[in-house]
Amino acid sequence: MRAATIRDGAVGVEEHPDPVAGAGEVLVRVKAAGLNGADLLQRKGFYPAPPGSPPDIPGLELAGEVAALGAGVQRFAVGDRVMAIVGGGGQGELCVVHERQLMPVPDGLGWEEAGGVPEVFTTAHDAVFTQCGLVAGERLLVHGAAGGVGTAAVQLGAAAGARVTATVRNASLRDGVGALGAAEVIAPEGFAEHGPFDVILELVGGPNLPDDVKALNTGGRIVVIGVGAGGKSELNLLALMAKRGTIRASTLRARPLEEKAATARAMERSVLPLLQGGAVRVPVAETFPLDRVHDAYERFAAGGKLGKIVLTM
Amino acid sequence: MRAATIRDGAVGVEEHPDPVAGAGEVLVRVKAAGLNGADLLQRKGFYPAPPGSPPDIPGLELAGEVAALGAGVQRFAVGDRVMAIVGGGGQGELCVVHERQLMPVPDGLGWEEAGGVPEVFTTAHDAVFTQCGLVAGERLLVHGAAGGVGTAAVQLGAAAGARVTATVRNASLRDGVGALGAAEVIAPEGFAEHGPFDVILELVGGPNLPDDVKALNTGGRIVVIGVGAGGKSELNLLALMAKRGTIRASTLRARPLEEKAATARAMERSVLPLLQGGAVRVPVAETFPLDRVHDAYERFAAGGKLGKIVLTM
Repeated sequence: MRAATIRDGAVGVEEHPDPVAGAGEVLVRVKAAGLNGADLLQRKGFYPAPPGSPPDIPGLELAGEVAALGAGVQRFAVGDRVMAIVGGGGQGELCVVHERQLMPVPDGLGWEEAGGVPEVFTTAHDAVFTQCGLVAGERLLVHGAAGGVGTAAVQLGAAAGARVTATVRNASLRDGVGALGAAEVIAPEGFAEHGPFDVILELVGGPNLPDDVKALNTGGRIVVIGVGAGGKSELNLLALMAKRGTIRASTLRARPLEEKAATARAMERSVLPLLQGGAVRVPVAETFPLDRVHDAYERFAAGGKLGKIVLTM
Repeated sequence: MRAATIRDGAVGVEEHPDPVAGAGEVLVRVKAAGLNGADLLQRKGFYPAPPGSPPDIPGLELAGEVAALGAGVQRFAVGDRVMAIVGGGGQGELCVVHERQLMPVPDGLGWEEAGGVPEVFTTAHDAVFTQCGLVAGERLLVHGAAGGVGTAAVQLGAAAGARVTATVRNASLRDGVGALGAAEVIAPEGFAEHGPFDVILELVGGPNLPDDVKALNTGGRIVVIGVGAGGKSELNLLALMAKRGTIRASTLRARPLEEKAATARAMERSVLPLLQGGAVRVPVAETFPLDRVHDAYERFAAGGKLGKIVLTM
């Protein structure tokens, strides 16, 4: 099979042996695979794939058709439309995924959208709902809201009855984020004056944290899942005590099978019905065929987009 | 009634009007009342009592007999032995407490011990179990383990089947903490080398936090409820993400009635049976009659004790 391949800090397309589905696994013929920030880090030599994933084929998510079943697979049949997060290897023509990580693609969702669903919606739902327990009536602040995870979080928060405030640095993208359901879309500067917030999704990093604590409501929860602007921060523990606040930090990629499978079940229960019904959608900024994977990565790295960059096979 | 009274940065005994129980409230004739760090802060003019508590009578906990019932009280009768956390005013001969905050004093528990139970055991149980979900088989690290909350946390953790590591600065107190059930009692220096820990109870403050994060197990929880050594800290968010860790911070005193009542029900369910059965006990370092409240505060401030300082009325 052909697959996006990282070699010496660059990404191109190379031939690889076809992977084979083992017990409990499914071979997926990939139709679309979204790009994520982790792919760029991996291209630079950081953030290596976890054990069990191809070390040189990037890609944390995919959508495609079931091509073959390993022994004992029960949930899917050949030809089914499926999607999943994977530890790596999503950006190839074929990928092996454990059946417990796979989700069905909702009817009416095209391949390009489906390829951009798993990573950002799973990440956003896990952070905002599973970890932080956002409920209707609460206020959610989403930092970096024009990116993939941000656009997913804004929509999921609004769909669940929360009032969503979004910070977006690029002024030209603010109307687009507002159209996704954010009640207010603001510049990052001075965001704490717009609080207090019950849940804060931190996708920017350390420099925001002191103001995140200031902007927190009593009993509020901060969840840090991206630190592109820096991983170090100062923390005022007395202020956090006064708020009776919580700071969580996590990544999805390093979790074991059973935890990733649990996120897939949460997606099936809470997010797929919203995608099926059209209450949330997948903004796709641009698609590229696999042969143009280098251009796709450059487009992702350039920023200034609303939503996902997706490879098609 | 006579009560410990803070005036111009000093604590003495003064006459006050007898308080009266309103609807849902109980008038308690106080027999014993423990001292806590917050009392010393209040004596200095910091950490004022919350609205609804006497501003000049310190005391966050008490044990005594029910002297009179306000309208509609259902859970208790005159003469019942009761104990409770209160927002302030515990260190007087009489104190009014809402019935939902009161707990029965277990049979066999003397007044001096009972007066030292509510604040430290409620704080420790709420932090370690309600907030951090410690379960059998996990490892618990208790910082500042020779103090009131520390001795409660060590015992509750051990009784629940966790393996407890305790840091104690004063070498002469380490054997006493070991006798409470800690599997290992160590000096604070280099504690991170003894990890990884699933739950860390932070009673010392900001200077410990960077090593707390280093010492955390995957999925571990840090809970900060004391910052005597300083409230500011540096936080490495990337390290916390890699651990998929949580930092919680809270205080008990500022919580509303319904939350304090919930902690009392958790105590009745999970801690009182252990006190009744003798699985956990209340180390009382020294008791003082109300008239010697000044000496009691000085003794508390001097440190170097194992367990509680308790006033008796």
